[in-house]
Amino acid sequence: MKITEQTAMALATRLLVQRNALARHAECQAELLVEAELKGHPSHGLQRLPRILARIERGLVDPRTEGEGCWRASAVWEVDGQNGLGPVVAMAAIERILERVATSGIAVAAIRNNNHLGMLAHYVEHIAEQGHIGLVMSSSEALVHPFGGTHAMLGTNPIAIAVPTADRPLVLDLATSAVSMGKIHHYAAIGRPMPEGWARDAEGEPTTDAVRAKLGSIAPFGDAKGYGLGIAIELLIAALAGSDLAPDIRGTLDAEALCNKGDVFFVMNAKAAPELAQRLSDYLDSVRASPPATPGRPVAVPGDGADSRRAAARTTGFDIEPSLWDELNALSSSSSVFEGQSL
Amino acid sequence: MKITEQTAMALATRLLVQRNALARHAECQAELLVEAELKGHPSHGLQRLPRILARIERGLVDPRTEGEGCWRASAVWEVDGQNGLGPVVAMAAIERILERVATSGIAVAAIRNNNHLGMLAHYVEHIAEQGHIGLVMSSSEALVHPFGGTHAMLGTNPIAIAVPTADRPLVLDLATSAVSMGKIHHYAAIGRPMPEGWARDAEGEPTTDAVRAKLGSIAPFGDAKGYGLGIAIELLIAALAGSDLAPDIRGTLDAEALCNKGDVFFVMNAKAAPELAQRLSDYLDSVRASPPATPGRPVAVPGDGADSRRAAARTTGFDIEPSLWDELNALSSSSSVFEGQSL
Repeated sequence: MKITEQTAMALATRLLVQRNALARHAECQAELLVEAELKGHPSHGLQRLPRILARIERGLVDPRTEGEGCWRASAVWEVDGQNGLGPVVAMAAIERILERVATSGIAVAAIRNNNHLGMLAHYVEHIAEQGHIGLVMSSSEALVHPFGGTHAMLGTNPIAIAVPTADRPLVLDLATSAVSMGKIHHYAAIGRPMPEGWARDAEGEPTTDAVRAKLGSIAPFGDAKGYGLGIAIELLIAALAGSDLAPDIRGTLDAEALCNKGDVFFVMNAKAAPELAQRLSDYLDSVRASPPATPGRPVAVPGDGADSRRAAARTTGFDIEPSLWDELNALSSSSSVFEGQSL
Repeated sequence: MKITEQTAMALATRLLVQRNALARHAECQAELLVEAELKGHPSHGLQRLPRILARIERGLVDPRTEGEGCWRASAVWEVDGQNGLGPVVAMAAIERILERVATSGIAVAAIRNNNHLGMLAHYVEHIAEQGHIGLVMSSSEALVHPFGGTHAMLGTNPIAIAVPTADRPLVLDLATSAVSMGKIHHYAAIGRPMPEGWARDAEGEPTTDAVRAKLGSIAPFGDAKGYGLGIAIELLIAALAGSDLAPDIRGTLDAEALCNKGDVFFVMNAKAAPELAQRLSDYLDSVRASPPATPGRPVAVPGDGADSRRAAARTTGFDIEPSLWDELNALSSSSSVFEGQSL
């Protein structure tokens, strides 16, 4: 079934406010999830909402805090997320470093005790829209096996980068796993086998069964190099934010534990130089226009696909599993201790 | 044949000083090349020296400058490399941001008009040895085809990260190409075919012939994700440093053009927290001890292999192609306009 951005935003926001979220926090969280749907990433979309609601109900997420921060150094904003909603704490931190970067040229926010960030592209795109370069890395519980290993020792440790140009920004967002755990959950939810090489089961054997993979481990992307990048991100985040390491991290996928992973956000000023932004977009256009490996399938630049899917979905709406939509509506109509605060 | 670190350092330093390099600059450049040999990366070792010497002789490298910098913002050191030796300009910039990071917590050096950096691990390892987190990215001329493309549009755009621990630091260093152009040159030099999937020829067709590949393009590592990372690094460097983009970059592989690529170095302070450094090394040890995919081949952490090769080579010396050693010695004994300044 198809629903519109507005319908999805209204329901997601209401569900969160019913559970005591401040209205602006509910909107911030809802926007992140709906944005993922618009961009064609349902694995990071509304299917995440029931768990977020359950986590609020169990006191694992405080939907009324933005976390507490301090300047650990003149360009390092250190944040205790106080178990706030992931995007709420993150966006508040980003606003602080966006102010600072005017004088420092670069600033970083190092966040611990924050909940799941969801789709990282959302944050760096926001930074790029303010005219700055954005870079974010986030850790997770142990889901990925090392190159040459068989058991989950690393987080999926995604990284996202956005660089403004004279046209729309380049927006990269990738997990350092062969796939995100969100996508494996999506395969498990729809009952389809996964491609070979994505995952191992709990015994360390290769599997294409998403349900078995959920108990096992995902392969790193790009063999030794992707593994190397993933473990470097793992260490960099823990060292900067003082957050836990993958084997000790909980609360990114469950509704039982506080979330103790880490997030680091970098904001940088591009060099002020005539024509620089135009040179960047011209370059991206030349990459798009370069000869394709498959005739008729033009070369794409990171973010192109998501951008055109979003543009289409804003006019036509987006597809959602009817069972998920029913589940969300049921969660809305169920009596809630916070019902009196609904929009 | 085997030579020792000391012998190699003496010859490389003398060759550079004979061409008018300041003694400390010659040592800095020689150390980088010899370090690559010790770590078992001959593609980034002494085979690069003849071209560096030729570039000095032709006035494309000024071996007496460290570049000129200014604080573009309180945490951004902007450098015009003035065509200095790559590691000389880089190390001078790193010293400046290492001073600044005590108060800013993070600082970046954005460098243009600098020569080839060589093995990036060298720089971040130096930063980690001072107790800080290091991250470097560097661009190059167009050598890599986009995912889904066939022609060189991106640099090999390497990234290196080092994070200090209670033990030795984690040191990651990877090109975002399937292999470095240095390795393809090495295959061409020894006349061996390359593995499939590494490269395409000038017509855009897949090839295993390293000589044909030198005129064509290298694949990105890790398919779409590695390509995405590479092009994001491409844009990030150009935006920060104001340097050129791959299709316009020259001077990283030739002895004909000034070098107009860009380098960005980040230095960050880890959080001061009890036991944090120990937690990081314990974690790395647990990754090493995790079950291997191949019995008897333990899981490695980035830098492990290079570190043990270097330890061995420091006592036994390292292998070098006799033809390269002869070539270097011939370059030393040849009369030079700067001969009077030899050590």
